[in-house]
Amino acid sequence: MIAVLAGGVGAAKFLRGLTNAGLDEEIVAIVNTGDDWTQYGLKICPDLDTITYTLADLVNPKTGWGVRDETYRSRETLLSLGDDPWFTLGDRDIGLHMYRTKLLAEGANLTQVTAKISQKLDLSVTLLPMTNDEVGTKVLVQIPSTDNEGDQLVELDFQEYFVRYSHQPRVIRVRYQGIEVARPTMEVEQALLNARRIVIAPSNPILSIGPILALGGVGDQLRQRAANGDVVAISPIIAGEAVKGPLAQILDSLMTQHDARIVAELYREVTSQFVVDTADVALVDSINDMGLTALTTQTLMTDLDSAVKLARFAVTVP
Amino acid sequence: MIAVLAGGVGAAKFLRGLTNAGLDEEIVAIVNTGDDWTQYGLKICPDLDTITYTLADLVNPKTGWGVRDETYRSRETLLSLGDDPWFTLGDRDIGLHMYRTKLLAEGANLTQVTAKISQKLDLSVTLLPMTNDEVGTKVLVQIPSTDNEGDQLVELDFQEYFVRYSHQPRVIRVRYQGIEVARPTMEVEQALLNARRIVIAPSNPILSIGPILALGGVGDQLRQRAANGDVVAISPIIAGEAVKGPLAQILDSLMTQHDARIVAELYREVTSQFVVDTADVALVDSINDMGLTALTTQTLMTDLDSAVKLARFAVTVP
Repeated sequence: MIAVLAGGVGAAKFLRGLTNAGLDEEIVAIVNTGDDWTQYGLKICPDLDTITYTLADLVNPKTGWGVRDETYRSRETLLSLGDDPWFTLGDRDIGLHMYRTKLLAEGANLTQVTAKISQKLDLSVTLLPMTNDEVGTKVLVQIPSTDNEGDQLVELDFQEYFVRYSHQPRVIRVRYQGIEVARPTMEVEQALLNARRIVIAPSNPILSIGPILALGGVGDQLRQRAANGDVVAISPIIAGEAVKGPLAQILDSLMTQHDARIVAELYREVTSQFVVDTADVALVDSINDMGLTALTTQTLMTDLDSAVKLARFAVTVP
Repeated sequence: MIAVLAGGVGAAKFLRGLTNAGLDEEIVAIVNTGDDWTQYGLKICPDLDTITYTLADLVNPKTGWGVRDETYRSRETLLSLGDDPWFTLGDRDIGLHMYRTKLLAEGANLTQVTAKISQKLDLSVTLLPMTNDEVGTKVLVQIPSTDNEGDQLVELDFQEYFVRYSHQPRVIRVRYQGIEVARPTMEVEQALLNARRIVIAPSNPILSIGPILALGGVGDQLRQRAANGDVVAISPIIAGEAVKGPLAQILDSLMTQHDARIVAELYREVTSQFVVDTADVALVDSINDMGLTALTTQTLMTDLDSAVKLARFAVTVP
């Protein structure tokens, strides 16, 4: 079994590569749920959804998230009623949120609901939400004042920061609300125990992987597996640039360094091997100096073929 | 001011007639919320919605409820996930439920949400939910056994009875869950106090008007207004036939009589005048014998013109 710690679009592409890599092993994705939230009464799980749609070949190829051939009739109603639907939901996508919300209201947990959806869409990856408890990624940001009264500090839900404010405001702090009491599921603990290899996908280390690592017990499990050389992490930064999403702004705000070394630093204790892009070969020595084994390969997933190659690399290096 | 006690399709048609009757008076509809429920996480108010869509000229003309030019993309997703979406929601309609659910979650009450929607859709009727509290119309039915073990008694939500079971099962009892603690809104009490005339629309007396009359204080207010001759009720039964919906089955199950007299009997204390169709002129004497004043006119609303005529009749008879 291969276990993958996964966030959104980058992880989805990696998992698609992994399922097409010709492996004869179960693939389990442990998925961040810190971005989950309830909007318009509907329970929305952005990372689970992006991976689900990608693996089911339903994803909108232009955005990397959401559903292809989507319509926005319900959104048109919201607009006509004067709502500001900055979090765009398509009609097909809404059906999935309605289904999930209904099953949760009937008493199923998120792991069970996700299994039902995965089964019905015939996914070849076992998707495991990191927890069935509520964890909310909160981003404290500095918003420039419009009336010369100085900047305002506001704590936003991740999606507000990410979508409504286009991840532009300066980030002061990120915290995972509820993380102290949230527990990883039994299925997650089992996967971390039994996987032959654990891969940390090229996802945002603070917003996507951070909540998973912060869940009680998961960090310790990872440290043990890393000590045996069983964990491989892939840098989401290539030549100093974040491939996608708000990582660049987050690093700008919170970190002094911008290149893959900062991610290696964050993962130092939970992985033994750290994959950087061939463009970052110059960083290998300093990553090795951190006590990690730096590996280089092409990490940019521009198509299925490059995703397959990266996935094979991550699960076959010794 | 004219106040109308209103249920679903029949009341919507009547209100559309009233707004086109050339009156220079405010029109207030006090709308049943006993059928309201939460499905797929969305707060749905069937009677308010039917009236809203009818008055906004958005209603599906074929059904008399739902939105015209509707699509069902979210429903297709539900089907693809193996859900049984027997309560069909169209994509445009869902947008309204999402908006309502969001505002309620933000702390608005149903009266405020309804006012916002009405204003945005430029309705010429003030729509007042009968209460901001939860009332649930529950229908105890007898469902024939499939395994020869005898019939089963099951209590259903109204919409389950009405839609899922196509109002076919024999009804044993109807109750309004929560009615003991629910209160009419201040706006409803004011409307019942100040209206020049109160009309009980041609709606289902047990499922639509019943919950309104059972709300604490409303029955008493109506009795007082009726004693002064200010209330007019319109029969939803013509020549022994219910015009629409489950009334026929309900009467079959619960009542010994099938004609308009049974409705007159139910409204005996809360109205002084009872309008029956010209087809029911033979019932006038027995209705008068109940202590009511029976009036006859054409009550079937086949188009806007007939609805306008009925509305004018109801608000102008002395």
